[in-house]
Amino acid sequence: MIKMFVSDCLGVNEEGHLTIGGCDTVALAKRFGTPLYVMDEDQIRKNCRAFTQSMNEYYDGMGSVCFASKAFCCLEMCRIAFQEGLKLDVCSMGEYYTALKAGVPAKNCRMHGNYKTEEELYFEIETGIGAIIADNIEELERIDRLAGEIGTCPHVLLRVKPGIDAHTHDFVRTGQIDSKFGLALETGEAMEAVKYSLDCKNLNLTGFHSHIGSQIFDIEPFEHNARVMLEFIAKVKEETGFVTQELDLGGGFGIKYTESDNPAPFGEYLKRVSAVIKEKSAELGIIAPEISIEPGRSIVGATGITLYNVGAVKNIPGIRTYVLIDGGMYEDPRYALYKSEYKIVNACRANAPEDSVITLAGRCCESGDLIGENMKVAELKNNDTVAVLSTGAYNFSMASNYNRFARPAVIMIKDGKPRLIVYRQSVQDLIAGDI
Amino acid sequence: MIKMFVSDCLGVNEEGHLTIGGCDTVALAKRFGTPLYVMDEDQIRKNCRAFTQSMNEYYDGMGSVCFASKAFCCLEMCRIAFQEGLKLDVCSMGEYYTALKAGVPAKNCRMHGNYKTEEELYFEIETGIGAIIADNIEELERIDRLAGEIGTCPHVLLRVKPGIDAHTHDFVRTGQIDSKFGLALETGEAMEAVKYSLDCKNLNLTGFHSHIGSQIFDIEPFEHNARVMLEFIAKVKEETGFVTQELDLGGGFGIKYTESDNPAPFGEYLKRVSAVIKEKSAELGIIAPEISIEPGRSIVGATGITLYNVGAVKNIPGIRTYVLIDGGMYEDPRYALYKSEYKIVNACRANAPEDSVITLAGRCCESGDLIGENMKVAELKNNDTVAVLSTGAYNFSMASNYNRFARPAVIMIKDGKPRLIVYRQSVQDLIAGDI
Repeated sequence: MIKMFVSDCLGVNEEGHLTIGGCDTVALAKRFGTPLYVMDEDQIRKNCRAFTQSMNEYYDGMGSVCFASKAFCCLEMCRIAFQEGLKLDVCSMGEYYTALKAGVPAKNCRMHGNYKTEEELYFEIETGIGAIIADNIEELERIDRLAGEIGTCPHVLLRVKPGIDAHTHDFVRTGQIDSKFGLALETGEAMEAVKYSLDCKNLNLTGFHSHIGSQIFDIEPFEHNARVMLEFIAKVKEETGFVTQELDLGGGFGIKYTESDNPAPFGEYLKRVSAVIKEKSAELGIIAPEISIEPGRSIVGATGITLYNVGAVKNIPGIRTYVLIDGGMYEDPRYALYKSEYKIVNACRANAPEDSVITLAGRCCESGDLIGENMKVAELKNNDTVAVLSTGAYNFSMASNYNRFARPAVIMIKDGKPRLIVYRQSVQDLIAGDI
Repeated sequence: MIKMFVSDCLGVNEEGHLTIGGCDTVALAKRFGTPLYVMDEDQIRKNCRAFTQSMNEYYDGMGSVCFASKAFCCLEMCRIAFQEGLKLDVCSMGEYYTALKAGVPAKNCRMHGNYKTEEELYFEIETGIGAIIADNIEELERIDRLAGEIGTCPHVLLRVKPGIDAHTHDFVRTGQIDSKFGLALETGEAMEAVKYSLDCKNLNLTGFHSHIGSQIFDIEPFEHNARVMLEFIAKVKEETGFVTQELDLGGGFGIKYTESDNPAPFGEYLKRVSAVIKEKSAELGIIAPEISIEPGRSIVGATGITLYNVGAVKNIPGIRTYVLIDGGMYEDPRYALYKSEYKIVNACRANAPEDSVITLAGRCCESGDLIGENMKVAELKNNDTVAVLSTGAYNFSMASNYNRFARPAVIMIKDGKPRLIVYRQSVQDLIAGDI
C-alpha cells in the first residue's frame, strides 16, 4: 500500500523509507545530519509555473507573480524564483540584499514592510528597486524626500486595508481595519494618501496593494477583495483622475499541512479572480489594471520537510507519549507561536500503520517546545528518523539560535539528487558576534 | 517627579531622558543605532551577589549558584557570571562552547537538556564538564557507554519531576508529571533510574535536580518542592543505601516586568527554602545535601532594556493606536509566544504623564508581530526613542532573523560607561550560510 501524503513530491521506496524528490530521507539524514531541512526543487519549479501559467491563461499574461521571499529566503531560492520568471517580494534590507546577491535585478524586486528606515529606503531607491509598497503617509514623505535627493522617481504602490476578514487565525489576519499594516479605506485614510502621493514630485504612484491574510482556503474572500479594491480604484479615478496601472492582490493562498486541509488548486484562484476583475472593471467603466499576486507559502510550503533523529521515547502512562527529537522551536517555532498542525511520518517505516499517538517534543529547555501534540504516526523508536511534512515555508525563515542551538542545513533535491544550499551553523558561528 | 520603574538601574536625567546605569538612553540609541539591547552590568553583578551572599548567609555556603545561561548567553555574560563566582548552567553545545571560550573552566559548567546527542555528550565528557543533568534512562546508557570509552567517570544528577504545579503559564510549567523533562516520581521511573545509575560503572551519581517552572512569585511552591525532593532522597537511601550529595533546586524565580508584578526578594527565597531543607532533613534523619540553584531571568531580566525608534504612529479612530517601531518579534518574540506583558517608557520624555494607550507593533510582515497591547506611555511621536523594560532575559537569546532582519547589538553599561559586547549583525552575516 502506498500512502497518500500531503505533497506530491513525497513517496515510499522499496525499503519502506520515506522519499522526497526520489531521495531516501533516512539516507539524507545519515549523510547530512539532523535536524535537516529538505526541499524539492522540481516541485518548487512546478508550483512557480502553475502560477505563471494561470496568469497567462486567465489574465492574458497582464500580471506578475511575485515570490514572497519571507516564506523562504536564501540565495538559491532567489535564483530559482528569478529563473522561473517570478519577481521577488522582499520586506527587509536582508531579503533585498539576498535577492541582489543572487543576481536578481533590482527592478524585479518589490519592497514591503510597515517600517522601512531612512537608510533602507535610501538604498532601495538609489539601487532602483522595482517598486516600493508604501505603508503610511510618513513613509510617503520619506520616499519623496529621499528620491528628490537622489534625483529619481520610484514606482510606489499604496498598501490598502480592504477591511476584509478572511476567517483565518487572528495572528495572520491583515486585511481588516484593526491592523498595523496599510491605509484604511473606511476612514478615508487611503484616499488621503492617494492625494498626498499625487502631489509628491519624486514618486510615481502606479497602483494599490492589498493582502487579506494567510493560509486561506476559500476563493470567495479573494474575489471579494478584488471587488472592493476595484471600487476604490474607480472612486480614486472619479475623485482625482488617477488611472491605476497595477493592482497587487497579495498572497495568502492556503496549503496542505494535514490531510484535513483542502486548498483550492492554484489555477482555480486566478481563474475566478481574473473573471471578477474583468467583469467588475467593465461594470465600473475602468480599464482593468495589471495585477500582481504574491504567493510564498503556496510555492515552497509543501515542497519541504524537516528530518529529525529520535533520541528518547517517554511514555507517561495514562497521560501521553513524548517523542524527543534533536530539533525544536528554535528551528520550527510555528506550533509554539500558532499551534500550527503538521503531519508527521516515521521515515524508516513510512508504510507501517499509524498506530501511535504521540507528542513531538524538541530539545529546547522550555516546556512549550513542542512540534505537535496528538500526532498519529507509525511507532517511533530511538534513532528512527522522523519527518515533519510541509515545513518549506516559515521554518528556516523563522529559525533562531534559542539555547544557542545551531540553525540546521538546507538541502535541495533536483532530478533525484541532493545538494547543500545552506550550511549548518557551527558553534563558531554562534559566537561570531560576541566580543 | 521621579518615576518608579521596574528596575533600580533606571532613572531620568535633567533632560527628562530615561537613563540606564546612568547613561542617557536617547544618546545610546543615537550612537549605537536601534533596535538596541542595553544591559546594566553593575545591576547584573549586584544580582549575582545577592544570590551568592544569601547562599552563604542561609545555607552556610554549602551550595552553588549556577547562572542559567539560556536566559542570556554571550561571551561577556559568561565572563561576568564566572567572575562573580557563579557556575554556568548550559543546555547545548553552543552554550557550553561559549562558556569555554569565555574562559570558564569545564568543571564549572553543568549540562542540561532533554536530548543531548552522542557527539555532544562525548565532547562534554571528554572535556571534563562539571556535571551532566541526565534526563532519561536512554541518556544514562549513553553517558555510561561514552564515559567508558573515554575512561572517565562524570558526575551525574538525575532530573526528577516532582509533580508540582507552580500555578504559572502552561508553557513554562515543567515540574508536573505531564512534561517532556525528566523522570517521574509517582510512576517509580525516578527510582528505577537511580538503581540503573548505581549499576553503571562509568558514571558517578551525585544527586538530583528538579525545576518547577518559570516566573514564579510565591516561595511556597519552592518550599514544597524541597520537601518532596528530600522525601525522595530519604526513600532512595532506604531502598538503595545511596547518600545524596547534591540537591539542585532549579530556577524559576519571578522578576518584575510590570508594576503589578511582585516578586519576593532573592534573599527571602533562600532563607525560607534553606530552613525547610534543614528541618526536613533532620526530620527524615538524612544529612542535608549541598544545594544548587539556577537563577537566569532573575539575574539578567530586569537589568536589560531594548531601545527602538518610532517610525510612524497610526491612530485608527475608535479602535486603537499602533506605534510602529524598528524592531519586532524577530528580536523579542515573547509577546507573540506567551502574550508576555512589558512596561514601556517614552525615553525622550520619561517624566511626562502616561496619557496614551498604544499597541507597540514591530516591523515584521506579520500581524501578530506586536511587543504589547494596551500599553500606557507618554505620547509617542515619530523619531522618539521608546524603551521596553525588563528585556534582559529571553530576548537576545530568542532572537531570530525572521524576514532576514539583523539581530541587534548588545551594549553593556558599567560605571556609567557603555561598551559593545555583541555586534549588530550585518547583511553579509545574514547570507553567510547561503550557497
